[in-house]
Amino acid sequence: MKIDRMQAFSDGVYAILITILVLDFKIPDYHVGSLFSAVLKQWPTMFAYIVSFLYVGTIWLFHHDFFQTLKETNTSLNIINLVMLFSVTLIDYPTALVANTLISENQNDMQVAFVYYDIVALFISLTFAWLYSYVRKHPELTRMKSDQPHFYLAIRYDPVRSVIIYGAAILATFFSIWLGACLLLVGVGYHFVAYLRLSKSMQKSIREDR
Amino acid sequence: MKIDRMQAFSDGVYAILITILVLDFKIPDYHVGSLFSAVLKQWPTMFAYIVSFLYVGTIWLFHHDFFQTLKETNTSLNIINLVMLFSVTLIDYPTALVANTLISENQNDMQVAFVYYDIVALFISLTFAWLYSYVRKHPELTRMKSDQPHFYLAIRYDPVRSVIIYGAAILATFFSIWLGACLLLVGVGYHFVAYLRLSKSMQKSIREDR
Amino acid sequence: MKIDRMQAFSDGVYAILITILVLDFKIPDYHVGSLFSAVLKQWPTMFAYIVSFLYVGTIWLFHHDFFQTLKETNTSLNIINLVMLFSVTLIDYPTALVANTLISENQNDMQVAFVYYDIVALFISLTFAWLYSYVRKHPELTRMKSDQPHFYLAIRYDPVRSVIIYGAAILATFFSIWLGACLLLVGVGYHFVAYLRLSKSMQKSIREDR
Amino acid sequence: MKIDRMQAFSDGVYAILITILVLDFKIPDYHVGSLFSAVLKQWPTMFAYIVSFLYVGTIWLFHHDFFQTLKETNTSLNIINLVMLFSVTLIDYPTALVANTLISENQNDMQVAFVYYDIVALFISLTFAWLYSYVRKHPELTRMKSDQPHFYLAIRYDPVRSVIIYGAAILATFFSIWLGACLLLVGVGYHFVAYLRLSKSMQKSIREDR
Repeated sequence: MKIDRMQAFSDGVYAILITILVLDFKIPDYHVGSLFSAVLKQWPTMFAYIVSFLYVGTIWLFHHDFFQTLKETNTSLNIINLVMLFSVTLIDYPTALVANTLISENQNDMQVAFVYYDIVALFISLTFAWLYSYVRKHPELTRMKSDQPHFYLAIRYDPVRSVIIYGAAILATFFSIWLGACLLLVGVGYHFVAYLRLSKSMQKSIREDR
Repeated sequence: MKIDRMQAFSDGVYAILITILVLDFKIPDYHVGSLFSAVLKQWPTMFAYIVSFLYVGTIWLFHHDFFQTLKETNTSLNIINLVMLFSVTLIDYPTALVANTLISENQNDMQVAFVYYDIVALFISLTFAWLYSYVRKHPELTRMKSDQPHFYLAIRYDPVRSVIIYGAAILATFFSIWLGACLLLVGVGYHFVAYLRLSKSMQKSIREDR
Repeated sequence: MKIDRMQAFSDGVYAILITILVLDFKIPDYHVGSLFSAVLKQWPTMFAYIVSFLYVGTIWLFHHDFFQTLKETNTSLNIINLVMLFSVTLIDYPTALVANTLISENQNDMQVAFVYYDIVALFISLTFAWLYSYVRKHPELTRMKSDQPHFYLAIRYDPVRSVIIYGAAILATFFSIWLGACLLLVGVGYHFVAYLRLSKSMQKSIREDR
Repeated sequence: MKIDRMQAFSDGVYAILITILVLDFKIPDYHVGSLFSAVLKQWPTMFAYIVSFLYVGTIWLFHHDFFQTLKETNTSLNIINLVMLFSVTLIDYPTALVANTLISENQNDMQVAFVYYDIVALFISLTFAWLYSYVRKHPELTRMKSDQPHFYLAIRYDPVRSVIIYGAAILATFFSIWLGACLLLVGVGYHFVAYLRLSKSMQKSIREDR
């Protein structure tokens, strides 16, 4: 089975998801004449939007680069991909929850919102672990010839590390919300760093294959 | 007529539909400090979302695999495809209805929501029956050479079986909501099983053609 | 300039527009236990949805077939296409207005909603007239060789006829809402008939070119 | 790395963004029977919609033409493109703010809304400046052979000019809202003019390369 329709469908889902995140920006109830302070108070919406855009954007970059190493797909990979897309679409709701609880500033609610976000992020990382391990066991799907095992060895622990970071973030949130929030940001930042590393290692593999 | 723009358009519709399902998650009205119980009470939204995502995802997998057996399209097939897309877009509203009536827990309203969902599911299955019978009568559109009639014979009763399951679900809902809900889940689960079977039989056909 | 990115972008806009029309279905305010009558009262939403889905679907079919006769695009055609997409996206709002005024059953409001819909439909037809006349004057963009002028002569009056139908619908709405509504339906139905005719004539042209 | 998936993803984001702008049209609260005046009062929504559609449409045209000059992409360009898409998605919210403050007619709120729009527009122009300067320093990504430096010299000051216009618009808004609004419109109009110029110069370059 050719891989391009699956890529196109995934691109569609990512493009829509990253764009409807913007629907979280809603005109607040404000007294006429005081829009400025009402808009300023929305900084958590902007903050949560930037983090989630960076997050979904990084996942798309991963998806884009990783699926370029594949030459075809099969039923199992299509299903794994759907589960992965499912996990990513879940990020929209906790993004709104985090923004709203940061605005209302209640500690208990903020804990709930951050833990929700962490759980979704943890779930996303697990689906990536599943994808990596599946592809590593099915080299017939891949384009790479030389150095292929080495490539997957290099990235295989990335999802596990993310799972550990988000697990720590969940635990930390019960003691200190801000520590939990920092670990969440570290998790999202780690994806970006891991992506840059994957991208570099992939380009090296391709160059060596020529 | 080439088939790729029709596939791309359908992929777009499926991708959007599966992603805007997530808009059903709305921040509930809650007392500040009790977000946790408010979010827990939203389990029906999550449940309905998972079922509908699985449902639309399976339909996309079907569409993806089935249209790979075709080499071109024509005006009639484009129109059948549009009607099919129309039927699938309808799933969004009963998904929200089911989630909301499960939250408010009124028996009458739950009946209405489940029957609405069943009717849409039944309609989707009818459009698939239409598609299968049209393509079976127009072998000039298909890529397969040998064993082609056998392939369509193998899948021809799938939509009819779905129609029977959803019809039974509608009837059952009037006696017992939970029996009706179970039959609905059986219906959605059946699509997934039928897809796996189609996918396997299709790959066998392709292998034999080589 | 190659035409495929413009087609893909247009497909995206049509796919999104046709799918977000479904967001017009909102859970109504209802007394717990009486969802059935509340849902029944939403028939105008379903009706308006079906009409607009058929309308946008037909426009997509037109776009799909017509752009297959072109082999490349240029800056002017890209701009005409953007204006056409703009006109089509406007259909979402009057669809909601028509559905809502049919529910609240006020004659004045229904007039406003229908005339709004007619004006948007008229604008869409004008952009199609612009597109047809532009392409007819730029045969270097087209794929067809023989019979090309004949093909454009056959379809050139279609947009003008639509403009007349929608113009008549606007006038009629001031005397009788139902007559106006019927003319609007005739207009949308006419697009579908015109499409079938275009599609047939196009396939004949292609066959003759071989 | 091939450039087509990045183009497809960007097309998806632009298509969704330009289409969900239409969700700003919401049925207003109105007394039954007076929909006409309620709809008339929404002229700022239509106005803001037209401006933002023109704006996003022009950016898409730019993106479409500019990326045709490239033959491949790399990790940095993918990231710059994501930041560019991020900046463009932000336009949705100030569009709604401008429309709403024009309806409620409060001077302070209008200032806030216009300045918000200006800042987003300024940010978009900065990402374009970044894109242009990156591509100019990486001629290995480009398709053009002759005259390549000349081409980038011709367009290099476009983003800077936009930044100046939007900066002036921000300053002007504090003295006169209408002057600020005019400068904003000049800015959006300038993009369209700059696009036509880019498009012409690009086609000249391509013709000379043959």
